[in-house]
This record gives sequence, C-alpha cells and structure tokens, in this order.
Amino acid sequence: MSDVLNKTTGPVDNSHSANSSYRVLLNGAAKFTSGFWAERQALNHKVSLKHGYAMLNKAGNLPNLKMAAGLESGKYRGMVFSDETVYKWLEGLGWELGRAPDDELQALANEVISLLTAAQQPDGYLNSYYQVVEPEQKWSDLDFGHELYCAGHLIQAAIAFKRAAGDDRLLEIACRFVDHIETVFGPGKKEGTCGHPEIEMALVELSRLSGEKRYLHLAQFFVDQRGKKQMRGLGANGPEYHQDHVAVREAEGVAGHAVRQMYLANAVADLYMETGEQALLETSQRLWDDMTRGKMYITGGIGSRYDGESFGESYELPADQCYCETCAAIGSFFWNWRMLLISGESHYADLMERLLYNGILSSPGLDGASFFYVNPLMLRNGRYVRLSANPPEEHKTSGRPEWHNVACCPSNTMRLRASLSNYFATSDQAGIQIHQYSNLEISHLLGEQNAIALKLETKYPWDGEVKITVTESGEQPWKLALRIPGWCQSFGVKVNGQGVNSILQKGYLIIERIWKAGDVVEAEFAMPPFLVEADPRVDGVRGCVAIQRGPIVYCLEEHDQEPGVNLLDVEIDPSEELTSRWQGDLLGGVMIIEGKGHQLDRSDRLENGLYHPLVLKTRIDLRFKKSH
Amino acid sequence: MSDVLNKTTGPVDNSHSANSSYRVLLNGAAKFTSGFWAERQALNHKVSLKHGYAMLNKAGNLPNLKMAAGLESGKYRGMVFSDETVYKWLEGLGWELGRAPDDELQALANEVISLLTAAQQPDGYLNSYYQVVEPEQKWSDLDFGHELYCAGHLIQAAIAFKRAAGDDRLLEIACRFVDHIETVFGPGKKEGTCGHPEIEMALVELSRLSGEKRYLHLAQFFVDQRGKKQMRGLGANGPEYHQDHVAVREAEGVAGHAVRQMYLANAVADLYMETGEQALLETSQRLWDDMTRGKMYITGGIGSRYDGESFGESYELPADQCYCETCAAIGSFFWNWRMLLISGESHYADLMERLLYNGILSSPGLDGASFFYVNPLMLRNGRYVRLSANPPEEHKTSGRPEWHNVACCPSNTMRLRASLSNYFATSDQAGIQIHQYSNLEISHLLGEQNAIALKLETKYPWDGEVKITVTESGEQPWKLALRIPGWCQSFGVKVNGQGVNSILQKGYLIIERIWKAGDVVEAEFAMPPFLVEADPRVDGVRGCVAIQRGPIVYCLEEHDQEPGVNLLDVEIDPSEELTSRWQGDLLGGVMIIEGKGHQLDRSDRLENGLYHPLVLKTRIDLRFKKSH
Repeated sequence: MSDVLNKTTGPVDNSHSANSSYRVLLNGAAKFTSGFWAERQALNHKVSLKHGYAMLNKAGNLPNLKMAAGLESGKYRGMVFSDETVYKWLEGLGWELGRAPDDELQALANEVISLLTAAQQPDGYLNSYYQVVEPEQKWSDLDFGHELYCAGHLIQAAIAFKRAAGDDRLLEIACRFVDHIETVFGPGKKEGTCGHPEIEMALVELSRLSGEKRYLHLAQFFVDQRGKKQMRGLGANGPEYHQDHVAVREAEGVAGHAVRQMYLANAVADLYMETGEQALLETSQRLWDDMTRGKMYITGGIGSRYDGESFGESYELPADQCYCETCAAIGSFFWNWRMLLISGESHYADLMERLLYNGILSSPGLDGASFFYVNPLMLRNGRYVRLSANPPEEHKTSGRPEWHNVACCPSNTMRLRASLSNYFATSDQAGIQIHQYSNLEISHLLGEQNAIALKLETKYPWDGEVKITVTESGEQPWKLALRIPGWCQSFGVKVNGQGVNSILQKGYLIIERIWKAGDVVEAEFAMPPFLVEADPRVDGVRGCVAIQRGPIVYCLEEHDQEPGVNLLDVEIDPSEELTSRWQGDLLGGVMIIEGKGHQLDRSDRLENGLYHPLVLKTRIDLRFKKSH
Repeated sequence: MSDVLNKTTGPVDNSHSANSSYRVLLNGAAKFTSGFWAERQALNHKVSLKHGYAMLNKAGNLPNLKMAAGLESGKYRGMVFSDETVYKWLEGLGWELGRAPDDELQALANEVISLLTAAQQPDGYLNSYYQVVEPEQKWSDLDFGHELYCAGHLIQAAIAFKRAAGDDRLLEIACRFVDHIETVFGPGKKEGTCGHPEIEMALVELSRLSGEKRYLHLAQFFVDQRGKKQMRGLGANGPEYHQDHVAVREAEGVAGHAVRQMYLANAVADLYMETGEQALLETSQRLWDDMTRGKMYITGGIGSRYDGESFGESYELPADQCYCETCAAIGSFFWNWRMLLISGESHYADLMERLLYNGILSSPGLDGASFFYVNPLMLRNGRYVRLSANPPEEHKTSGRPEWHNVACCPSNTMRLRASLSNYFATSDQAGIQIHQYSNLEISHLLGEQNAIALKLETKYPWDGEVKITVTESGEQPWKLALRIPGWCQSFGVKVNGQGVNSILQKGYLIIERIWKAGDVVEAEFAMPPFLVEADPRVDGVRGCVAIQRGPIVYCLEEHDQEPGVNLLDVEIDPSEELTSRWQGDLLGGVMIIEGKGHQLDRSDRLENGLYHPLVLKTRIDLRFKKSH
C-alpha cells in the first residue's frame, strides 16, 4: 500500500484516472461556510449521526456485531445485511471527523472501530449475520446473502476515515477482508458476484487510494460476472432484480431494482475512468439516456414500482405509486458525479442539482432524526402510505419515521451530507469549475505555482445571485467556469461590475483572465417560478403541470389552502402569473409561490360515475398557494 | 330435494326469492336466433367446448381426476385448484346441452361425469389435489387449499346439468359432497371459510333449486366467517387478498383480489335476495358505488394491479398496467345481474353491457380456441406483455394463447356464452323487460293466462335500431319495458309506425297496452361515435379521450394507421367529426371509426429529456383511423 496523505478528497479521487475531463479538488477542496448546506451539515453533525448511533444499537445492528465478536450473547436481529448500515453511518462519521473534528463523535467512531476489530475473524472474514447465524453457509447465497455488498460499504467507510481523518484502523480491517475475498473469488477460483452491486465501486476506489491494481482487477472481475441470468430474482421479479439479466456492455437501458442498477452504473463509470474501455462509456451513456428520457421522476427520483423496488417500463411514472427510494436518488447522484468528471458536460451536474434539492433533500426531516425511505410525490387523502417495500411498512401519515426496518436510506443521507461540498467544484489544467452554488470557500493549487482561493456568497437555492470573490490567485491567467443551470432561461455575469468576455462550453460559462485577489464575479441566474410539463407519453402526469423555481420542484399541500379546497380537483390556470414570497417562519425559511387556479365541480361526477362524454367543465374560481 | 323441472332458467333462479324487482324468465326464456351472439354461441358449441376438453386432458386436469379415481397413475399436475376448470367447463357443457343437444358434447359430458362419480370418495369428499397429493391434509389450509371453492364450481355445474338438461347425475355428486361439507363446517363444528369465495353463491343457488334452507344457512355461515384478519394473504398482500380484512357488512369499498371480491359480492347480493337483510343490500350498494366511482376501467374491467391481481386505490387505473382479469369482469357481470334483479335499475344493466362488449368479449379470440386472461388496454411498442400473475406468463405479442397455466378464464367464458341469453330479459307482474338487445325470441307466461311471445331483430351492437314483433299475447294489457342504454343521448320509439305514450322509469321506457300478435315496436337508439373522458382524478388517462360508439369502446392500433405513425404521439382533435364505416372483411365484420388527429413532433423532446417548461406544441397533421 502506497503512502496516503491526510486529505479531504471525498469519496471519489480521480487525480490519477486516465479518462477524466475534470479532477476532484484535493487537500482543502470546497467547504461550506454558512447558509443552506452548512446548516444542514451542522444538523447532521449535531443530531443525525448521534441519532444513527442510538438507532444502530436499538435496531440490533451493533448488538449483532457484538455477538459476532463474542462480546454479547443473544439473538441476531434484522436483515442479513445489517452491517451495511453500520458501515454507511461510519462512513458519514469519517467524513464528518475530517470536516469538523469532535470528541464525542470520535468516541463513537473509536468504539465501533474497536468492535469491528474484535469481530473480524483471523482469516479476515467479517459479517455479523453469517458469523452469528449461519457460520457454515458463508458465500453460499451470493444472490441474497449481501456479504460482498456489506464488504463494499466497509471499504468505503475505511476510505473515508483514511482520507478525511488520516485514520488507518478501518482501512486495515477492510484490506484484510479484501485479501480474504481475493482467496475466494476470481479467475480460476469461485465465480459469481453479489446480488447487490456495491463492492465494485468500493474496490475501484480502494485501488485509487492505494495504487494497487489488483483491487481494480477484482472489481472488473465482479462486473464481468453479470448477465448470466442465473440469479433467482425476488418474487415475480426476474434476474434483472439482481442486475443479472444482461451482460453489462450489452445493457440497452436501466432495469430492475433501482439502487442495484445505480450502484452497478457507478462501477461501470469508475472502470471506464480507470481503463478507458470505450464499451463501458457507451453503456453508461445508453443507460443515462434511457433513464432520463423515460424512467425518471421530475425530482430525479427513480423506481416506479414497489414490487422489486424497480424501474418500470419507459414512461411508467405514476406520481402516487412512485417508489423513488432515497438510496436510488443518492446512487444516481454518485453516478452523475462520475459522468460529470468523465465528460465535463453540465447536464450531469444539472441532474445532480435536481436530485439534491428534490429527490434527496426530501428524505431527512428538518429535525435531523426522521427520514423518508420512499419519497412519495403524491399523497391521496386518508390513504395509507407505504414507506418501503421490504418488508412492507405502512403509515397513515405523511410523516417521516425515526428509522426503518431496512435503514439503508438514513445512513446514506448521513454519509452524503458529511461529504457534500466535495461535489460542488472541480479543476482541470486550465482552471476551476463551479458546478453547484452555495456559500463556499474553495482553494486549489493550479499547476505547480498558481495558488487559487475563492469565496462564494449566495442565497441559493432561494435566490439566483451568486457573488464570487477571488481571495488569492497567482499571476498566470486561468479559467473560471460557472455552470448555467439547466432550468435557467436568463442570466448575466459581471466582473468587478463590468460586462465581461466569456464563452459558453458544455453548459458552462467560462471567463479567462489574470485574476487578482479582490476580483469580484457577480452572476445572476434569473429565478422566476415557472410551469413544467412532462413528455405526454408519461401517462401518470399527462395533462398536468408542475411548479418549479430555480432547482426546486414545489408541492401543493392541502393544509396550505383555503378551507374546503380538495387538491384532487384543483386545476392551475397557466395564464395567471406565479409570484414568489419569502416566508421566514415556515420550514425554517422557505420561498413560497402563489398563483391562481380553479376547483372543478364534482357534484355531477359523483352522480354519473367515472366516464363521461367529453364536455366543457363547470368551474368555480378560488385562490390557492403552494409551498415547498 | 324437491322435484325440479327441466327448464332453461340459467344460473340464477329468483322465482321464489323474497326480494326482487324482476324475475328471471322460466321455461323457454330468451333465445338467440341469429347474428352477433348466436354466432358466438355457435362458436362456443363447435370449437371452444371441445378445445376445452382437449386442454383439460393436456394440462392435467382430467388426468388428475383419473388418478383420484384410481384409474391412472402418475404425477399430479397444475395448481391445487385444478378441478375448478373441469367444473366450469362442465357447467358450460350443461347449459349448452340444454340449449343445443349434441351427441358429441353429450359423450364428453358422460365421460367426465362418470369420472367424477368414480373419483368421489365414499364419504362424499371430492378434490383431486388432496386425494392424490396430500390425502392427510384435507381442510387444513383453507386460505390457499381451494377445496370449498372447487366444490362451489361443482355445485354450479350440477345445477346447469339439472336445469338445462334435466340430468341429475352431477347434482347427486354435488349434494353428497355438500352433505360431507356440512359434517365438517358450521356452528359448533369447524370454523373458517375458503380463501377464495365461490361456494357461497353456489349454495344459495342449490337452495333455490332444491328448496332446502340448510344450503342457504351454510352459505350464510361461510359469508359470516369473513373479516377475522386471520388469513395469510399472498406475498405483500394482506388479508384483503382473501376477503378476510373486514366483516362483510362493514366493508366500505371493494378491495383485494378482484375475482374474490366479485364472487363474494355475488353471494352478498344472493343472500339479500333470499333474506331481505337490509345491511347486506347497503353493503352491496356501497361496494358498487366505490367500484364504479373510482376502481373500474372504461371497459368495465377491474383489477389495477398484477400484484395480488387486485383492486388499487381509488383512481389508480393505469391503462398500460391494468390487470382486468376476464374472470373479474365475468364476476362483475354476475353481480350486476343480481343487483339488477333486486333493484330494477338500469345502471346495473348498463354495466353488464359495458362488460359484455368490452371487458369480456376481448378474452376469447375469433377462433374460439385462444383466450386472454389479462385484458390489456394499452400495449407499448415492443414491450413484453404479462398475460397473468400466477405464475407470471410473458409474451412478446398481443396474441391470445390457446390456454393458461391457470385456466380459470377460458372456462369462465364458455359457461357464460352457453347461458348468455338468460341475462337479456326478465319479467315482473306487469310485463316483460328487455335489458340487452340482440336477435332474440322470448316467450313467457304472464300470470296464469297471458302467454306472451316476442321476436327481436337488430344489428346491435353495430346499429341502434331494434324491431320487436309481438308474435303472441293474451287479451290483458301488459307493459313492455325497454332499457335506454346509458350511452344513448337520443332515441325514438314507435308502435306500428305511430308515436306512442310511454313513461321512463329507472332507466327503462315502458309501454303499456293490450298487445296483439303482429304489433311491431320500432326503437332507435342513435349511435354516433363520441369521445369519452374520465374523471380527472384518474391519473392514468388524464388529458386523454376514449372513442365509443354504442356500447363499444374502440381501440387505436398502429397497424391500422398510415406508415410512420407512432400511437404514443398521436393527439385526437376533438373538433373534428368522427365517422363510422362498416368493414365486412375485418374481424368478421366490424364498424370502424375514422377521425383526424395530430402527431406530436418528438425531435426536441428526445434532445431535452422528460421535463420541459410549459410550451405550445409543434404539430403536424395526419390522418388516422380506429378499429375495434
């Protein structure tokens, strides 16, 4: 293992990857200073990560590991993949300890890392379910056993502790486990791979961290095992449930279990970045086109079906039946990051933004200790909401529970929040690219001498004005690239109050000059509310409009309306103007949108049933308002 | 058992039921003479019933019974409810032998009745699965075992042979089995009921046939067992799968497995007809309102989900994901018949018509030897079609298979076709009611002296003109009631070429006079094509229109269009006139409809993904035509 510096590079480090347009920022990266994301990161620090520890004890995940370590006796609880939740939480803790060291969080980390050290077998194997419940059945059920999946999350947690906190302890555990896995799997050894992709991208990253190609080769081996159509699937779902329905390079579109598909897509993009194999890039682009042209909700959320937590057919996107699992949205966020690094094209960053503010932000509650697993787009009055598919959980409420039987999603939001600022900016040989806007400090050494530091100030996502101050720059010219958000119809940029020459490339506005400390860039992305329609092939929302302002898709809720308004009968009048108004006392401060619409008269419909000759509708006027 | 005359009364005989507005016609009933339904009944006679026999041998159902009878050895094949398909086919044979005696069909009946005689145990028990595979497990798995369900279909087949053909043999087998069941189930004996309702309505009918109240009491006992929430459900489906989620009288709406819900609803209506218990009628009306206001497709088809073959939530009616099982549509047809007999209200007959020409007619192919189980309303290009849910069958075609792993639907269409004319007319003390229009001969003795005979001539469903000739009548005045179809916006009636006094009551046009042989009634129900829209709460078809003409809902198929037209992008222009044209060489003769529409330009959509700011659409003109 090569020596690795303490650096806050984040989950992906493509510094030495052969095929990238942009590189992640090293050593210092981008950091939130205040405002929207800084507040949410602080909440993760103060509440969510501690809440996670309590829940992991309560739900059995940590007790399971204590049994594996011989420190406790009792009955194993929860799912076979119980350890994954510990690892994702631990990964979040790792990034957070790098970002904002804290004795209390450090103590939790120490405790759980010691527990894992104690639980790991002398041969390197580590999995509480198989050690406690079925010690003779290791590696016997790759389809559903999740052993490699859990190992993948252990590796990612280990990388976080190494990179963010310079802590080697988890990495030693992870590498011992991978050494063991290498004795079991590979060419000439056991064939097959895990029913749930995850270890592949973890192994690529471990290869990036260590410089060891054998991890990359093992990742490649696992990816190449897919498509044998031998995995059992779940219930009525076929081998696509396990991403075993087609060889990776032959996939025509996204299919099956959405999280599994996303994690596999991440691995395919990662492998392309390292190997440059063109077929992998073409597959990635085919999958992305298929997803974004027919299998994605307006929030970026994916998964149309509870059955199999899966993608549906193209255009099968029912608003009230959507699955939109948080983990699938986060998996897509990770995948789009890799595609952005590879291609430099802004539409990947656009989708990351869509996901971040809609498909992902919806999961954790404002209290930091409650979470959606499924992120419903529509709730019908008085109906039960299914909160997940495995096993089915039901609630007669739109409220977020404190935890889930399968708690993959809460822990996923924690690791993402702790490492989020890493996804906001990159560099290339010519300069710095800003992909997402927030109050940020960015520092980067361009080439060997050009030390650059920037400060971003903005009220984004509530306001489209972004002020960027150059606080440090060398004397060589360099390019500042600003992403023009896909939703933005009108924008302007000034430098030091003056118009400026710029070019538009791959969706980015690029300004090249010899920057001096004190230079100020003012960008304004006009943010009026607007109506959005879907491709009319989408049955679920044909004849409907959504309301969007900036990156945020709004929702219409009954309790915000005048008494007596039933949302199922409201029609928005597209000829009426939508207006925005800041409401500081709602949801911790939120821009609300007001507009006008009609409530359809239902009296004759109830009388006459569901189907009627086409007639003009009777309408009554009323006011309504919409809030996020 | 009281003596029973040979009479073609059909599956329901409410002659002596306390609570009915209309009575079924006895002895002679209504018979098709020629045209639409006569041709389809002849096809059932010549092809379908013989095909059914071949398939029952091929698929294992008859071999299973031979094993139970000790006549063959081998391995049991198919589902635990294998016998039900034999019984439903046999019921069809019974009605057909009454309608059109035939040596070949009689020989098949004799063979299978002898087989059942041989298979029945000395104690009366009869079920090939339990006798062959699990003889020690009888009555141990009421949830999934289907023993009472199969017994119910045996009873219904027996009633058909008795009523239609005067053949007692099956009835003796059935009554011996019921005697056995009575020793097992009932107050103070075993509690519980079958996971699949069916025996309840069969027992009520057996009580009507025999006059024996104990059968009615046993039906009541089974109905009253429901709602204990003890049944296991299937997969993620709860006790509503087995209609065990709520006590019958407390049900607020239709739920769970659609066929099970329909068969139970039939039993509830049957019990009300016999007992007059108001709570049962109110439950029936609540369920009907709930179904028709939010859980029914435009074809009358029901079941929105493959998962559990179940009803969805209200307004969850996706066109491309619909289940619309043939058996569920037939179950609804039967239920609406009972509700019509009880209430005398035309909306039940309207729904029977909607089901008959759309939800049910779609199942059997024009060859009489191929069948849909699921009746899809929308097929997307090149996608697999799931043909049923248990176990999943897939086809890359819209074609009907010759049989199914679960063959409940083909046999159900056979028994319905053979007995169909019974559902077209009724009587009450004042006269005759015509509910459905076809070429029919009707004879009825009104009161003790008034012998009435009518002849109907019509090209229905292709033309709305109906000529009714009185061929016989006594000298007392009586009322002829003609249903005004729910789809009809304009109609006229003449008697002997003259205008006539009539009243409109419960959706029927009633003409009272002293009828004479030779009197001619000419009714004309205007049948222009028209566009239909659904309640906008139905996400699946919001912003869509359907095309209907008379009772028939049309479909738009790509192979009928100009080359290059993609149906997913076609928009109908509601301001253009729709025209009808007879095409004798298509599908055995069919009225096609032609209209105008637009094909949406998709080039920018593919470029820009699924979601766009609301804009005016670019359109190109093209012609299209629609066929049934």
